[in-house]
Amino acid sequence: MGAAELQAFLASDFGQVAEDFAVEEVCAEGLRVRLKVAERHLRPGGTVSGPSMFGLADVAIYLAILSRLGPVALAVTTNASIDFMRKPEAGRDLIGEARLLKLGRVLAVGDVLMFSEGKTEPVARASMTYSIPPK
Amino acid sequence: MGAAELQAFLASDFGQVAEDFAVEEVCAEGLRVRLKVAERHLRPGGTVSGPSMFGLADVAIYLAILSRLGPVALAVTTNASIDFMRKPEAGRDLIGEARLLKLGRVLAVGDVLMFSEGKTEPVARASMTYSIPPK
Amino acid sequence: MGAAELQAFLASDFGQVAEDFAVEEVCAEGLRVRLKVAERHLRPGGTVSGPSMFGLADVAIYLAILSRLGPVALAVTTNASIDFMRKPEAGRDLIGEARLLKLGRVLAVGDVLMFSEGKTEPVARASMTYSIPPK
Amino acid sequence: MGAAELQAFLASDFGQVAEDFAVEEVCAEGLRVRLKVAERHLRPGGTVSGPSMFGLADVAIYLAILSRLGPVALAVTTNASIDFMRKPEAGRDLIGEARLLKLGRVLAVGDVLMFSEGKTEPVARASMTYSIPPK
Repeated sequence: MGAAELQAFLASDFGQVAEDFAVEEVCAEGLRVRLKVAERHLRPGGTVSGPSMFGLADVAIYLAILSRLGPVALAVTTNASIDFMRKPEAGRDLIGEARLLKLGRVLAVGDVLMFSEGKTEPVARASMTYSIPPK
Repeated sequence: MGAAELQAFLASDFGQVAEDFAVEEVCAEGLRVRLKVAERHLRPGGTVSGPSMFGLADVAIYLAILSRLGPVALAVTTNASIDFMRKPEAGRDLIGEARLLKLGRVLAVGDVLMFSEGKTEPVARASMTYSIPPK
Repeated sequence: MGAAELQAFLASDFGQVAEDFAVEEVCAEGLRVRLKVAERHLRPGGTVSGPSMFGLADVAIYLAILSRLGPVALAVTTNASIDFMRKPEAGRDLIGEARLLKLGRVLAVGDVLMFSEGKTEPVARASMTYSIPPK
Repeated sequence: MGAAELQAFLASDFGQVAEDFAVEEVCAEGLRVRLKVAERHLRPGGTVSGPSMFGLADVAIYLAILSRLGPVALAVTTNASIDFMRKPEAGRDLIGEARLLKLGRVLAVGDVLMFSEGKTEPVARASMTYSIPPK
């Protein structure tokens, strides 16, 4: 699935969060997704909240899996590990660059670096595992 | 800080999320917090979303630290690891039982088990590290 | 499987590490295992090495799974998360207290607290996931 | 510090493990280290043990920090998260490619991909946090 198809899948199957994210590019290694930061993603002081960064990481790696497998809406996150390394810049979107590291029969693993748009040092990194349902 | 003081701290310093959580009990080991599950926390099928569970874990361990240190609003999450183990029951609140495992000069560590209310098997577990700002 | 059977399983199937560990007690929640700390487990200054603590956590949770499932030698560790919280005491064994949190058809999850013998504050905590092979 | 200096540091300060590792290259992003796989690193069936992979990850990221900071022998690992994704090839060394993601005043974070030599798909990935002692 390409960027437009993944965006359409988000809209049809995850309507509540689809407007938060823009799939920007699918590449050989994985893909790039934008969290369109709005008031509801912020904490006092203008920083992006932890749950919002978790959500970006989860969507980015999940879509990287779907880009290979097609629309497997039932893949579920079983493990997540996140390092919060820098404070996101106020008033900027967050960009997630995900890599798919393993796509097995029952488990898939990916990781993601998250950046405030236009910055080169990541604000956070995450790795996640997904359980793939049997066909 | 006791349960009522922690609840008041949430309301004053984290107004956006304070209404999502009820601090139920502070004990020697840590504390118990309720995520008052509402429509905005759900995914299709009625299950509680990953970011909402992340948020419960983060609030539970953070408040366990504050219950010992007093209101240190600037402690920041530096690492989180979560295992999602079972699907939460539709239509039930989630209960987080947090333990404080380390309260050092610069780092604090805790973990939490999360349960659908009334169930004995945890839906998820998480461990988190916080950086404590110098006084 | 009880403590003696698990110890015998270690000796027959994991001969290289069996002498490092003593299974002390199997209980409803999980089990307790001792790392018999020797010179080969130490770092300069007498502290127990990270790989040795990883090994204790892995053996403890793995045996907690086997205590329920019987000898499934092929269960493999797929994820581990460890927090190192205090320096182990020189010259003391490490005790691992493991809890089995999920025992599913394809995945099992447990966590463990590790203590220098006789101390009440944990030196480390770990959580691990195992993939259970199909029968 | 370059590759030769890091290797000398391992020999002088971590004599027990220095012969297990060869620092191959220091680059802008981090560095590459080889685990010289020997009998003592193996499990039945010829696969590299979990503690040995943990050790490779820890050494790789630790040395990536030292390559920037100089010899800070007291930096300590505070958190590790590892995904074991494929079985290492029997009879091959493991190569760890570490990236330094954050080098702060009190915390440093890096991650590493581990490969059986000559293979393109990683056997494991790990991320680790280190506490940097005050000067």
